[in-house]
Amino acid sequence: MAGAAPFRTLGIVGVGLIGGSLAAAARARWPEARIVGVDRPEVVADAQSRGWLHEGRPSAAALRDADLVVLATPVPEIVEALVAIGRSDAVVTDVGSTKRGVLRAAAQVELRGFVGGHPMAGAEVDGLAGARADLFAGRPWFIVPGEDAPAEAVEQVERLAAGVGALPSRVDATTHDRVMAYVSHLPQLTAVALMNAAGASTGPQGLMMAGRAFREMTRVAVSPPGMWQGILASNDDFIADALEALRRELDAFGAERPASGQLTEAFERAAAFHRQLGKGGP
Amino acid sequence: MAGAAPFRTLGIVGVGLIGGSLAAAARARWPEARIVGVDRPEVVADAQSRGWLHEGRPSAAALRDADLVVLATPVPEIVEALVAIGRSDAVVTDVGSTKRGVLRAAAQVELRGFVGGHPMAGAEVDGLAGARADLFAGRPWFIVPGEDAPAEAVEQVERLAAGVGALPSRVDATTHDRVMAYVSHLPQLTAVALMNAAGASTGPQGLMMAGRAFREMTRVAVSPPGMWQGILASNDDFIADALEALRRELDAFGAERPASGQLTEAFERAAAFHRQLGKGGP
Repeated sequence: MAGAAPFRTLGIVGVGLIGGSLAAAARARWPEARIVGVDRPEVVADAQSRGWLHEGRPSAAALRDADLVVLATPVPEIVEALVAIGRSDAVVTDVGSTKRGVLRAAAQVELRGFVGGHPMAGAEVDGLAGARADLFAGRPWFIVPGEDAPAEAVEQVERLAAGVGALPSRVDATTHDRVMAYVSHLPQLTAVALMNAAGASTGPQGLMMAGRAFREMTRVAVSPPGMWQGILASNDDFIADALEALRRELDAFGAERPASGQLTEAFERAAAFHRQLGKGGP
Repeated sequence: MAGAAPFRTLGIVGVGLIGGSLAAAARARWPEARIVGVDRPEVVADAQSRGWLHEGRPSAAALRDADLVVLATPVPEIVEALVAIGRSDAVVTDVGSTKRGVLRAAAQVELRGFVGGHPMAGAEVDGLAGARADLFAGRPWFIVPGEDAPAEAVEQVERLAAGVGALPSRVDATTHDRVMAYVSHLPQLTAVALMNAAGASTGPQGLMMAGRAFREMTRVAVSPPGMWQGILASNDDFIADALEALRRELDAFGAERPASGQLTEAFERAAAFHRQLGKGGP
């Protein structure tokens, strides 16, 4: 794990679960480099007291001295931060869950290079309170280069991701957003819908009878709606397709007698797809 | 954990994951009692070689000497076994995932008492190969007494469940089946539908991009279709209601712009229901 830092000064906008973990991991990995953060003063103070930030700045526009800037806010604010930066000699990356909108916004801005990113990492506790240096260990980190991003900018962001323990892999924005609609956004909406269907129909006594499968399948139903609003709004078209695909699969069970019809065929198809999941992921 | 065995001779019909685990747990808990099993000769021989059965019998009808009989086959065969037994001085119980049909069948048979049961226990490996003595430790075991079951028969089955480490609780058959439609059968169908929607739309490269939530939500998609066919067919009416409830929840997200509409309200409702799940279950 040798190698110089892929930055002299790293700027992190949004010091929450992802931004804070990134600061912690980068401080541990490259103790010689400087890390500056943009967030509310009490959040910056908290991160400084943990030894994860050298200093705070009032806004993304005040990161002129950083040669690598990570936008680690919710998706809508990533676009706002790009507009606020306007032009910069830094390479800029982000950690948003969707990539088409962010890349469109980045194309309007003059940067040394924009390289979208999406680390697949989460935690039970949101915000800086849940942050930890090993959050990215062994996790996928999708790298989605902007159209005009120089090769060295892409490599710089890949070295950041790999340096904090993640597994970077390149993908284009449309493929990324389409796949995420099915493997991340649809599951999130399904968990919420399943929780509400069961909760409204069975009441508290019924919910207490739920076993392991139900608990697993509704674990993410408590995810913060504000964050999801931003993600889903930026991927509406693909999510609408994914919801329609799920509806078709549910309809195939039949409205009257779910156990007849295509049941065995559907289970066998699912088992075959499940094998393609592989052992990957977290 | 003192107390005499709730049986002198325990008969177990179907020595698979549940029946085999029950034999193993009962042997360990009550070494003085006798345990006889009904299954294919090679399965009985396997269970005997593990020290879990004293002997095998050719059919449920050949369990005249047992004072407690557990029907641990798939749901349709539980009904067949009840017919085969016809009349008996034993208390009979079962471990099927639905209870109305089994209780209807038991009402046609002359037994000392029928007490339905449903241990909420599963394992990655099906059949006797996955069986183990601690399968029921800390798991719910629903007790669904038949209409004319004597109080001592219900207590006998509860002592069996508690003796092997499970947490017995009484519930009526209709409530049980209605709740299971929402917290067990609907999640199963949803996992299959989600796996198929994503698999058909994204292909193998897309599936490999799936994270923890998708993997959790599709874990049960590989469950054996034969077993589920029997469960679902015995609970068609409630499952149809549950599928319709899920469809309504999904439709509430809107076909065109899922992020608009009731999103925040749906997430907040789901979070409130999720708190009612409690810490219970496995």
